[in-house]
Amino acid sequence: MDAAEFRRRGREMVDYVADYLENIEQRPVYPDVEPGYLRSLIPTEAPMEPENYDDIIRDVERVIMPGVTHWHSPYFYAYYPAASSYPAMLADMLCGAIGCIGFSWAASPACTELETVMLDWFGKMLQLPECFIAGTHGHGGGVIQGTASEATLMSLLAARCKAVRWVQASNPKKSEAEIFSKLVAYTSEQAHSSVERAALIGGVMMRKVPTDNCFAVRGDILKEMVEKDKAAGLIPFYFCATLGTTPSCGFDSITELGPICNGENMWMHIDAAYAGSAFICPEFRPLLNGVEFADSFNLNPHKWLLVNFDCSTMWVKNRADIIGAFKMEPLYLKHENQESGLVTDYRHWQIPLGRRFRSLKMWFVFRMYGLKGLQAHIRKQVALAKEFESLVRADKRFEICAEVILGLVCFRLKGSNELNQKLLKMITKSREIHLVPCQLSGRFVLRFAICARATESRHIQQAWQHITQLTFELLQEPNH
Amino acid sequence: MDAAEFRRRGREMVDYVADYLENIEQRPVYPDVEPGYLRSLIPTEAPMEPENYDDIIRDVERVIMPGVTHWHSPYFYAYYPAASSYPAMLADMLCGAIGCIGFSWAASPACTELETVMLDWFGKMLQLPECFIAGTHGHGGGVIQGTASEATLMSLLAARCKAVRWVQASNPKKSEAEIFSKLVAYTSEQAHSSVERAALIGGVMMRKVPTDNCFAVRGDILKEMVEKDKAAGLIPFYFCATLGTTPSCGFDSITELGPICNGENMWMHIDAAYAGSAFICPEFRPLLNGVEFADSFNLNPHKWLLVNFDCSTMWVKNRADIIGAFKMEPLYLKHENQESGLVTDYRHWQIPLGRRFRSLKMWFVFRMYGLKGLQAHIRKQVALAKEFESLVRADKRFEICAEVILGLVCFRLKGSNELNQKLLKMITKSREIHLVPCQLSGRFVLRFAICARATESRHIQQAWQHITQLTFELLQEPNH
Repeated sequence: MDAAEFRRRGREMVDYVADYLENIEQRPVYPDVEPGYLRSLIPTEAPMEPENYDDIIRDVERVIMPGVTHWHSPYFYAYYPAASSYPAMLADMLCGAIGCIGFSWAASPACTELETVMLDWFGKMLQLPECFIAGTHGHGGGVIQGTASEATLMSLLAARCKAVRWVQASNPKKSEAEIFSKLVAYTSEQAHSSVERAALIGGVMMRKVPTDNCFAVRGDILKEMVEKDKAAGLIPFYFCATLGTTPSCGFDSITELGPICNGENMWMHIDAAYAGSAFICPEFRPLLNGVEFADSFNLNPHKWLLVNFDCSTMWVKNRADIIGAFKMEPLYLKHENQESGLVTDYRHWQIPLGRRFRSLKMWFVFRMYGLKGLQAHIRKQVALAKEFESLVRADKRFEICAEVILGLVCFRLKGSNELNQKLLKMITKSREIHLVPCQLSGRFVLRFAICARATESRHIQQAWQHITQLTFELLQEPNH
Repeated sequence: MDAAEFRRRGREMVDYVADYLENIEQRPVYPDVEPGYLRSLIPTEAPMEPENYDDIIRDVERVIMPGVTHWHSPYFYAYYPAASSYPAMLADMLCGAIGCIGFSWAASPACTELETVMLDWFGKMLQLPECFIAGTHGHGGGVIQGTASEATLMSLLAARCKAVRWVQASNPKKSEAEIFSKLVAYTSEQAHSSVERAALIGGVMMRKVPTDNCFAVRGDILKEMVEKDKAAGLIPFYFCATLGTTPSCGFDSITELGPICNGENMWMHIDAAYAGSAFICPEFRPLLNGVEFADSFNLNPHKWLLVNFDCSTMWVKNRADIIGAFKMEPLYLKHENQESGLVTDYRHWQIPLGRRFRSLKMWFVFRMYGLKGLQAHIRKQVALAKEFESLVRADKRFEICAEVILGLVCFRLKGSNELNQKLLKMITKSREIHLVPCQLSGRFVLRFAICARATESRHIQQAWQHITQLTFELLQEPNH
């Protein structure tokens, strides 16, 4: 395919994309396929000779679309949102064309520098404390990670390295392995599974901290656990707080937890993967109070801020901590400007070496929406969640299971877990809307998350009508 | 921006991308900017109100392009190639529009299933042993990682977990920490820095194995090191072989190393990030002989097989090994089909949770080029490297520093490291071509890698003319 054909096929693809998103409501949100469906639809081997492009495009509808869960359908209420916007898609096209691998400043200065400045822009939108802003002389700054899982892992590894140095400063003879075996990390029992995974990867113990009746970790309980572990000769070194937990969008009490972590010389990382985007609105910013105690902070614009996946923004107070965790300098990656204070080599900030020019997406989105446009997007989706909450509350058969603070509503039928499992099965089977469950205090709960940019009030009303219709059918069954 | 505007802007962007790539030769390959250049060109904060799209596009030329290292310029010979092709870019547009996060089968069945089948297609193109093919009943199979660094880390973590289980089977009382402290991993002294980094992350020792005069690890030396470590009470558990090292494109002797690893119950991972793509050509396939001994194998189509970054393909013999390393199942990620043998939940195969629909790029590229077209691409670039090698060999002032097997030529001026450093500085400063150095047996060496898809014989001739012109100037200087 030469440039001329790309011009033609590119235009067709732009139209295909626009058509897809404009008419997405007409597709069933959840696919009706069985595991293994795709293999039988395509050859068992790659072709020897080039094929015709038209055949490939035809196969997108024949092979791919029947098996797609449509995350941008207004009938998709599962998990948490995946961001999508036209400006981000345009920026991604540009990113693909430039196609640089920005592991160091020299590998593409624009790729590195736009990222640093975009993280500063975003940090200011979030009113982060000055210490997280890179500026021209700051010790902190931001980076785009692929996912929140990687941000959590990076923070845990940085904390582990810092803890080893700190212990060895007074006990130079203690081996790394010996110290590792005493390190203890903490996180909420409601935290995302990736936090526990980070500890498994890092080879350190992780304790799950019980939460209060709002599914939040409180200071006194962490304090107690830390004291107990210290008394047993262990070394508490890391706490991962969550703002906006995955099950119920709960918020750990970081104003209580931060001072404890600081006092105990424990790294505090804040995972605000979903909820963080909301903090650009003044009315939600108080939820981030206490961030000044954190060593690192992460949120996913690719969830709720209209920047297509992947774009997980992370800030650190002290870039030396994260770089120091495993800086390595082979000759083929060295370059002239490396020792300048202005130069950032982002490969030291992340697990992978290579990286795409992802800050272009942030730049396009921030400028095409403006802060006000982005705030409007958040507010609209919170209002839709509140609308759904009202519908649930008005129906005496149902109950709300956690305070609705942002765009997630946790609800259930009053009654057994089995009843609710049945209801969810009926919902999934009908394929009209899509949601997933969670477990809260041993109860099986349905999660209704406002996801698609295209979701409007009428979709919420329709979804509720559908749920109540299925509920009616369910409760008609003889054994209820 | 609504769909109608996206249609218009999307067409413009397609043209911008085509223009950029058609005229890339006219841009200096390496940017003439100082660290911090970008910050002064844009505002210090994000705008409150939406901006005009035309202003953003104007800023791409004003702010971004002056700071871009043009990886797809035919004058770019640095690092290793980053792949780029029009079919991959079209597929990426589709990927962005679908915008699913394919962490589990249910999150988008097509995303998971196309990936499994594409890895089978590709595995067959590479003539991988049957045990690496998923098929419908296989125990092995493939996955797309973001980068080779992640593939290496995943293999090391899987090996670590397997080693712990194996030790604990006979010594149930041995703690994980105790075992970790005895584990030893091995890799070539020529291996990529990410391999050492994987060991740092995993908290295990890593030994660098010396190489022979072809920069290859040989069986006897590994055997000797393993025996010594075992005698000291340590537990050798992992060897990362490299096929196509970063400094010189050297090849570890996996036919010798494989049986040793198998005999010692050590996991053998093969990192063929760059060179692996060449194995689709029968004449280069012998370089992969010995893969049957490996537990996992990785290469980057996003380097040399025309699939835009990121796309790093990894196969494992036993998927249970990699999944078992840290499988976790929170309720919000469970789904009905989970226990079926046909279902793959790729989140267990990788560090991040989220993942893009990257197999679309492979599907488009494989079909638009066909196996023959891809082989032609590899062969053309190898021929260009051989052409450059001949030019170097014909000039008595220069020497070739490592056998030219694929698309990389390592060369230097006969003389001091300082002389060669000076030559590279002149090359970098002139900005007409771009290359990076490496260190081989203590000598400073220039690496000339055939990178861009657009590179032709005339560019090679021009590059060599340029290098000899600078050499002439350098050798004219009074102190030489």
